[in-house]
Formats: sequence, C-alpha cells, structure tokens
Amino acid sequence: MTTPSTVHTRAGEQSLSFTREFDAPAALVFRAHTEPNLFGRWTGPRGTTCDLEHFDATTGGSFRYSVIGDQPYTFHGCYHEVTAPTRIVHTWEFVGDPGRPTLETLTFVELGNGRCRIEGQSVYTSAEQCAEMLEFDQSGDGMDENFERLDTLLADELG
Amino acid sequence: MTTPSTVHTRAGEQSLSFTREFDAPAALVFRAHTEPNLFGRWTGPRGTTCDLEHFDATTGGSFRYSVIGDQPYTFHGCYHEVTAPTRIVHTWEFVGDPGRPTLETLTFVELGNGRCRIEGQSVYTSAEQCAEMLEFDQSGDGMDENFERLDTLLADELG
Repeated sequence: MTTPSTVHTRAGEQSLSFTREFDAPAALVFRAHTEPNLFGRWTGPRGTTCDLEHFDATTGGSFRYSVIGDQPYTFHGCYHEVTAPTRIVHTWEFVGDPGRPTLETLTFVELGNGRCRIEGQSVYTSAEQCAEMLEFDQSGDGMDENFERLDTLLADELG
Repeated sequence: MTTPSTVHTRAGEQSLSFTREFDAPAALVFRAHTEPNLFGRWTGPRGTTCDLEHFDATTGGSFRYSVIGDQPYTFHGCYHEVTAPTRIVHTWEFVGDPGRPTLETLTFVELGNGRCRIEGQSVYTSAEQCAEMLEFDQSGDGMDENFERLDTLLADELG
C-alpha cells in the first residue's frame, strides 16, 4: 500500500478546504460515510466509541450520535444532499456548543489503481469559528486522527 | 399598523446578515415559516404559486417545493434545527443551479406591542455566490418582495 497523503487545509475568512487521499475506491470510502455499521467504526478520536442515536445518510435525512471517551460528545446535523458515490452535503453541530452550525461538502474523486481523494469544504457561521477549527485541525487531534482510523477500517474491509 | 422596516443587509466575504421587523408576534411569524398551509401562501415572488412537494419543518426534517410563475423554480433543503418560536437553521439550494447550497439561520425576536424582528444570516460556499445574492436582494426582487407578501398574510391572519 502507498502511504495516504495527509490532510491539506486551505483557509478562507469563513471556510476551510481540505483534501485527503485513501488507498481504497471512492465507492467504499463513500459507503464508510453513509452506512451506519461502517460510519460508527471510525468516527471520533482513537479510544472512543460512537453511539449512533439516529443515522439516516440520505438526501433530506439527518443524524445524531455521541462519541464516547471519558465523557460523551454529542453531534447532530442534517443531510442536504447524498448522491452515491460522489457527493455528500450536510450540516453538523456540537450539541455542547449550540448556535454554531457548520455546512460541509464532501466530494469523492476516483483516482484509479484502487485509490481515491476526498475534497472537502467546511463553511462556518463566523470567521472566529473558522480560525478555531483551523487551529484544532492543525493540532493533529482533529481530522488527521479520524482519517487514520478510516484508513484502518478501509484496509480491514479490503483485506 | 406601523410601517414594517425594510430589509437591512450587511455583507461579509461569505455571508449576508439581515434584519426585518413585522407587525405580528414572533410566534405567528415563526408559524408562517413552519406550517405548510401558511408557508406556501407567501413564499415566492408576487403572482407565483408555491407547490410544496415535501415540507417537514422540524429538526432533522427537509423540504422540496416549486415556485411556479412563467416556469417552475424548484428548491430543496434540510432543517438542521427548528426550535419554536425562536430559531430555524436550514439549508437551501436552487435545483437548477446545483453545487451551491446556502446555510441560513433565522432568529425570531419579540419586540412587544405585537411586533417582532427576524435576524437572519445566510452563509454561502463562496464569496462570489455571496456577492451575487447581495446584488439580487438589493435589486428589490428578492427578500423585500417576499417579506411584503408575508406582511399581507400576517395582516390576514391577525385581522
């Protein structure tokens, strides 16, 4: 297996863009975002479990789940668009910090040779929130660790 | 009745904020956004009708409707949060121009004496889309006309 590239982030005033490559076909990485039995296995930091209270990853559907480590962190959102296997547009918000929803677009690009790339954009309701999320992701605790867990799951599914 | 204030817009790089006052209590203006039999009567420019294909204005719900004049314009989106009678957070997108969803937050503020104010924010996926929407709204064809139709409906309901 080639080494997956890391997360590359580009910051705007109110949005972050990122790309991430995976050693798996787009269809499988897409399914890992839309099928509850896959999604729950990689979402959240290492050492946590994910409890899906509600998960309907279809256009017009919604979700609510808790990432459980020392304490539970609950998130909710709605699916604006889910088009297999290329595109997911959804909102999300941390229940413990209400009033700051994020609009996220994920595009799944087939690269050939069993690899694919996610191109993502997160749009925030303020420049302040955007700067905070950039700092969190650059600390390595955010997206990087999550996507490393996804790498492991993809290898398991393909193996 | 006092004269309702017009729409005041403030532009950021990727978002617009606006306020609009109404001669009606917040609870009624909120219901005009969440009850299909009210929503369909003021949504869209004058001279159009609104066909609600799907309308579930609850947290995690979604909508799809067409504004029908010379031709139909179809919109869809999902409801991230609907908290009566103070707050609605939803996405929306024009089906004829896909790939450009908007995240909109509406806050309903009681002003007393039977009046209220909507404080709104629309967040776009690009600065270009934000500039286009500002131009559209400032032309008077957008929000102004819509909210004038809402004024009429509110007066009918109160009258």
